[in-house]
Amino acid sequence: MFPFRVVNQAAVEQILDMSNVIEVVEQAYKLKATDQATLFPLIFHEFEQGKADMDIKSGHLTGANVFGLKLVSWFGENSAKNLPQLIGMVMVLDSRTGVPLGILSGEHITCMRTGAAGAIGAKYLARKDSKHLLMIGSGHQAPFQIMATLMVMEQIEKVTIYNPQSHERAVAFAQSIQNTLIDKFVSKYKGDPALYAKWAKRCEITFAATDNIEAAAREADVIITATPSRKPLVKQEWIKPGTHFSCIGADMEGKQEIDENLFAGARLFVDDVQQAVNVGETELPIKKGVITPQAIVAEIGDVLLGKVPGRTSDSDITIFDSTGIALQDLLTATHILREAEQKGLGSVVDL
Amino acid sequence: MFPFRVVNQAAVEQILDMSNVIEVVEQAYKLKATDQATLFPLIFHEFEQGKADMDIKSGHLTGANVFGLKLVSWFGENSAKNLPQLIGMVMVLDSRTGVPLGILSGEHITCMRTGAAGAIGAKYLARKDSKHLLMIGSGHQAPFQIMATLMVMEQIEKVTIYNPQSHERAVAFAQSIQNTLIDKFVSKYKGDPALYAKWAKRCEITFAATDNIEAAAREADVIITATPSRKPLVKQEWIKPGTHFSCIGADMEGKQEIDENLFAGARLFVDDVQQAVNVGETELPIKKGVITPQAIVAEIGDVLLGKVPGRTSDSDITIFDSTGIALQDLLTATHILREAEQKGLGSVVDL
Repeated sequence: MFPFRVVNQAAVEQILDMSNVIEVVEQAYKLKATDQATLFPLIFHEFEQGKADMDIKSGHLTGANVFGLKLVSWFGENSAKNLPQLIGMVMVLDSRTGVPLGILSGEHITCMRTGAAGAIGAKYLARKDSKHLLMIGSGHQAPFQIMATLMVMEQIEKVTIYNPQSHERAVAFAQSIQNTLIDKFVSKYKGDPALYAKWAKRCEITFAATDNIEAAAREADVIITATPSRKPLVKQEWIKPGTHFSCIGADMEGKQEIDENLFAGARLFVDDVQQAVNVGETELPIKKGVITPQAIVAEIGDVLLGKVPGRTSDSDITIFDSTGIALQDLLTATHILREAEQKGLGSVVDL
Repeated sequence: MFPFRVVNQAAVEQILDMSNVIEVVEQAYKLKATDQATLFPLIFHEFEQGKADMDIKSGHLTGANVFGLKLVSWFGENSAKNLPQLIGMVMVLDSRTGVPLGILSGEHITCMRTGAAGAIGAKYLARKDSKHLLMIGSGHQAPFQIMATLMVMEQIEKVTIYNPQSHERAVAFAQSIQNTLIDKFVSKYKGDPALYAKWAKRCEITFAATDNIEAAAREADVIITATPSRKPLVKQEWIKPGTHFSCIGADMEGKQEIDENLFAGARLFVDDVQQAVNVGETELPIKKGVITPQAIVAEIGDVLLGKVPGRTSDSDITIFDSTGIALQDLLTATHILREAEQKGLGSVVDL
């Protein structure tokens, strides 16, 4: 029998802060790029088409001596049952012995590491002088993308929000997002007044909703997409040279958020080649014959390590296709388990 | 946050008894045969060749409204660290909502459901008048195979044990197995004196070790193989008509316990066609060209349901290739969770 730590959602939220998660996710990408991490095949199962599915993402971080998995299920009709639609669990084990180390609530880990991923794409691929972020999608994930991007892109001074389904929701989002960022993310730094002030100040910028996606896209320096879309929301002809895309929404076959023609001539980076080709934003441009898999310049970890240049000029269009990989979850979870142990958070049970 | 039951190894051992597990595993096979169960692809990863690996088996039992997975890791060098070589966990979730129901220690579940599987193969495929069981392998799994088989095959009056690596261990095993069966399995029925007496009596038969595998195989009616062998231990020419094999050991590429030529002309049944072809005892006879996958008569569930005849004559050689499927684990785990809730066993934590 093994002592085994269970960390629930409240404890995960208490432990994680965005700047830490950005560091952890960068580390995960770097481990992958130095062959200190292996992704296992993705398992995806649809219980009922368009209504309920689950996936199991798993892998091994030799560089951190852990392996494990994240199981996430999505049940679209859960809201009517007073349950969250998305439920996730991360399981971490010691890769030197197979001994289980812990199980953690996975929703907040997923949100945080996904926000970090979009921002890391912008940090390493967008023009340093990028001033205008267009956030497409104003759902649960949008605040995570915005906060993380503001933290790593110091010149951003305006965030425009577009919701393809409801302008009203975009307006409400734009009105509340500053408070949301303070409450959800900046409040974590209360113990460190200088850091708190720094990040709070970073949120004092312009947030505006738009119902004119074309105008917003024409003006944007960085575009982050985080929607469940299955058709392109952004057209190629709107995009000025030098724009960066972090494509977050596409994580299963058939999903697409931006014009496949944008991929021709863009510098394309992914978190994992195989996942990107199978289920990412990269899937359809390949299937439609716009590009071949060889158009992928590299995995993002290679850019972080300086092995491959990201942007090569101010006029490059850069794309980061983030499908979400188990290594992000596992390394974030490992960080949480270490903190939880130090702080005495979570329950320790025998397995 | 969700209340979530953690059932450790001691509680699993307290709850499970072999006759119940045999019923549960039969039920799992039947659900699979009536399309009330889906296996997801098997994930296998070798940390270090021949020294450490792990697999994730997962699936969905619509018929029981659960889905989930079992993660089992094997670290050959753990004994030196005072840790078990095999460590497993089963995770069960509600397939109507995605809500996690529990996590359970997986080792004992695996041992019990594997024992049940071998016995179910014999129950449905061996000659009813089978008197002599040859158990090849005297490791951790052997007592589970023997107990379950004695429970379902009432005519068995002699068990011969062969250990391909050490006759001494076979001798020691044969000397202690009766007590082991009583302690480990029959003692579960202490609360029901009639049942206790019935199963205790079933263990009063002859147990003998042999170092002459040929003579034992020539005489056997039922042969169960549960070794990590990678070469055949049983030759075709030794086997008399009417013999039944339950092949348990082969669960990864390259493993083999019996002569591939036995497959030509045998009635071959499997737990899951794809797993059997990929990693089961069926793998090498196909790769060596002795049979094609079409030689598989059916999955065992079809026999249990009477959809496909098992043995068609007293002279058939029958083979059950049991690779071990997640559905066995998940349904056994679901049974445990139900019992644990009723009996107040395990810890309930928030996830």
